[in-house]
Amino acid sequence: MFEKITGWDDTIVALATPPGIGAIGVIRLSGRNAFTIINQLFPSKNLIEQPSHSLHVGFLKDEDKLLDEVVLSLYKNPRSYTGEDVVEISGHGSPYVLQQIINACIKLGARLARPGEFTQRAFLNGKLDLTQAEAVADLIASNTSASQRAALYNIRGGFSQQLKELRERLIRFSALIELELDFSQEDIEFADRKQLNELLNETEAVITLLIHSFRLGNVIRNGISVAIIGKPNAGKSTLLNTLLNEERAIVSEIPGTTRDTIEEVLNIDGILFRLIDTAGIRRHTMDVIESTGVERSIAKMKEADLVLYLFDVNTITTDELKQVETDLLQQQIKHLLVANKIDFTDEINAKEKFKGITTIIFLSALQKTHIDILKERMVQTILEGKVQAESTIITNARHYHALQQLHSALAEVKKGLQDNLPGDLLALDIRRCLQYLGEITGEITNEDQLDYIFSKFCIGK
Amino acid sequence: MFEKITGWDDTIVALATPPGIGAIGVIRLSGRNAFTIINQLFPSKNLIEQPSHSLHVGFLKDEDKLLDEVVLSLYKNPRSYTGEDVVEISGHGSPYVLQQIINACIKLGARLARPGEFTQRAFLNGKLDLTQAEAVADLIASNTSASQRAALYNIRGGFSQQLKELRERLIRFSALIELELDFSQEDIEFADRKQLNELLNETEAVITLLIHSFRLGNVIRNGISVAIIGKPNAGKSTLLNTLLNEERAIVSEIPGTTRDTIEEVLNIDGILFRLIDTAGIRRHTMDVIESTGVERSIAKMKEADLVLYLFDVNTITTDELKQVETDLLQQQIKHLLVANKIDFTDEINAKEKFKGITTIIFLSALQKTHIDILKERMVQTILEGKVQAESTIITNARHYHALQQLHSALAEVKKGLQDNLPGDLLALDIRRCLQYLGEITGEITNEDQLDYIFSKFCIGK
Repeated sequence: MFEKITGWDDTIVALATPPGIGAIGVIRLSGRNAFTIINQLFPSKNLIEQPSHSLHVGFLKDEDKLLDEVVLSLYKNPRSYTGEDVVEISGHGSPYVLQQIINACIKLGARLARPGEFTQRAFLNGKLDLTQAEAVADLIASNTSASQRAALYNIRGGFSQQLKELRERLIRFSALIELELDFSQEDIEFADRKQLNELLNETEAVITLLIHSFRLGNVIRNGISVAIIGKPNAGKSTLLNTLLNEERAIVSEIPGTTRDTIEEVLNIDGILFRLIDTAGIRRHTMDVIESTGVERSIAKMKEADLVLYLFDVNTITTDELKQVETDLLQQQIKHLLVANKIDFTDEINAKEKFKGITTIIFLSALQKTHIDILKERMVQTILEGKVQAESTIITNARHYHALQQLHSALAEVKKGLQDNLPGDLLALDIRRCLQYLGEITGEITNEDQLDYIFSKFCIGK
Repeated sequence: MFEKITGWDDTIVALATPPGIGAIGVIRLSGRNAFTIINQLFPSKNLIEQPSHSLHVGFLKDEDKLLDEVVLSLYKNPRSYTGEDVVEISGHGSPYVLQQIINACIKLGARLARPGEFTQRAFLNGKLDLTQAEAVADLIASNTSASQRAALYNIRGGFSQQLKELRERLIRFSALIELELDFSQEDIEFADRKQLNELLNETEAVITLLIHSFRLGNVIRNGISVAIIGKPNAGKSTLLNTLLNEERAIVSEIPGTTRDTIEEVLNIDGILFRLIDTAGIRRHTMDVIESTGVERSIAKMKEADLVLYLFDVNTITTDELKQVETDLLQQQIKHLLVANKIDFTDEINAKEKFKGITTIIFLSALQKTHIDILKERMVQTILEGKVQAESTIITNARHYHALQQLHSALAEVKKGLQDNLPGDLLALDIRRCLQYLGEITGEITNEDQLDYIFSKFCIGK
């Protein structure tokens, strides 16, 4: 199937480390000519005679021109990331010098790798299945402990294992049905219909769980957008600063993100909370929801996955707050009511005052009291009703859609079983289920789909 | 001497690759505990038993928490960059994941490396002398073939070798003088004064050459600033675009440079030309030198190392051009006169018209004719009277100043020789020369100076 993929036999080269100036930069070279190419650039030793997994220090020379002093890591096929011969060239971190080295490799017959092409080759050579390959990209993009854990779980083949078990069940099922077909004249039932139905129910339950996990997976992967809403002087800016000082996330500059969004991301218990319109809060322009009916405020709140409605506990009336809550509930906006400035009042009295209203978090943004409670409630609100992080979590939209298709195909099989559909038609439906499963792990796939998946990788991976 | 340097015995860790998202990122760990630290994070193998210069693939674990799947490069002392035990951890290029790995190393007793600390340790352990260490930083910052070549020459110890020869000469000289001191009662001259004088002259000539090379070295390292000056409609903007399209340099985003200066750098024959005030040219605001006496234009031109005075060959009068040339010469501004729009006139006639004026470059920025001649002349003008790139080139201001001091100390010795100064005083002057030489290579140095030199490195190097 893969022979047709263009350039599959080429030796490819790319910078594997981020662009820019650093102490070192690493260039990857992979393919059948990797060793002969590097050997022509490295005069001091015959690298072809060296063992796999060894390191070599020396100067790279392009004919007479000295390029750099480098360390070479040699990996002989199949014991490499791609499964091919691989050389990693670790040079001084000057973009100019690294470019010279890449140019020298190209002059000797290598070509620039396409995005994700190293990982694609690893997949094509059977070093990784598709879910593992996709998890590599997820790990690189991970920015919390939760996304790191989910990606590593999948790299190690956790999800693949689960799919493999599902696949085996369906194949067993299918084998029994197909056996009946051979004896179709005799009207024998090898496959006990009741047992089959049980097997289907179990399989369906597993898939449903996986599908549901995508909501949490999405949270883990993309984070939760949070809007802090409230009247002027409710203390939004102070709360924002208190949260940011405590939990500001390490988020690197990802192309396409603006400086504003980079700075204002919280990492609480491994979940990313992205504070939207924080520039607005800072500029004190987005201060007002005088009437909760105002279009603009509603739109802003609906943009968010979670709204923190902040109010001054000393000035708000119970009726006012009740109205806010009713409006938020009516609009089906997921929210937390946050009573600020309890340092200026008696906490017990305040709680008494609002006791008709469900749960309020009482805190002081200025004194940093009860901020922990707010953070805990934010995480709880998001995880509510979602599967726990211990099991497999679907973080990939492609997997999600394939699982949904699998789910309805499975329903077809179940219906067919109930309707006493002939075995050959049942077998057809089951084969369709296997098709969807195979698409996830890459056992069944096509070139276009592969190219699309790997084109989302960065170059050098 | 070095025992006192604080933290010298610590195990240090830092990210060695540029920050940001990439396929991989490399963390360096160096020091006496490097292997015991990594061993606690890498459960699958006992790394202490593994040979130097070997590669190991596996998972890093911080207690129960999986961190990443990595490749480890092991270097045992003294066969490493720093001369200590070194482990390079090549992980997935997620800034979050890499930070987790660094944190885990710190938890086990490593500390974050200071800028340049790896190279500083290489120097302290005698793996590099100071000029070689400084050349590492130069190579990382290099962005043309000339700066790459100069840095690599110094990394390989070319400059050190030359200094070593100078040093040996002076020591031989000094030995003879000091021998005389032992026999001072007897008034014997072991050192033939005439030979000594010749030796001094030769040494002085070498040092003078090195000092002169700094002007070229500076050009190689920092580039040449160029201003394109001329009346409105002389075609400045067109010339700018033509030059940029042909020779735009690969210059990475160095902290502190603005986007404007990044984009407008030319790399001609390995020399960087930085086009100043190109934003002004683009906005058509810096168009005018109606009178060459205008303060502002003069200031702008004096800022530049080289001025290209561009004029429309069809509209300028000979007198006008003569006046411009006279003014530029009077102000001692290095310049080239560039006649544009020869595509609208007869080239031979035009050359005839201006034949009283020294050299003019005739070209068409629009048609891209004779642009090569302009570029050649730009390079020639800069290299004029400077030493050629084949020999050692001083690119470092610290070396330059030490060589200047050495030069005057040498003159003292020469004068002393002429004045028949007693041997003990001569010996003192020679020792001062040796001191300056030793400062360059780092044989004689102090902690403050070292800290200053290495603080200019990037972290991880």
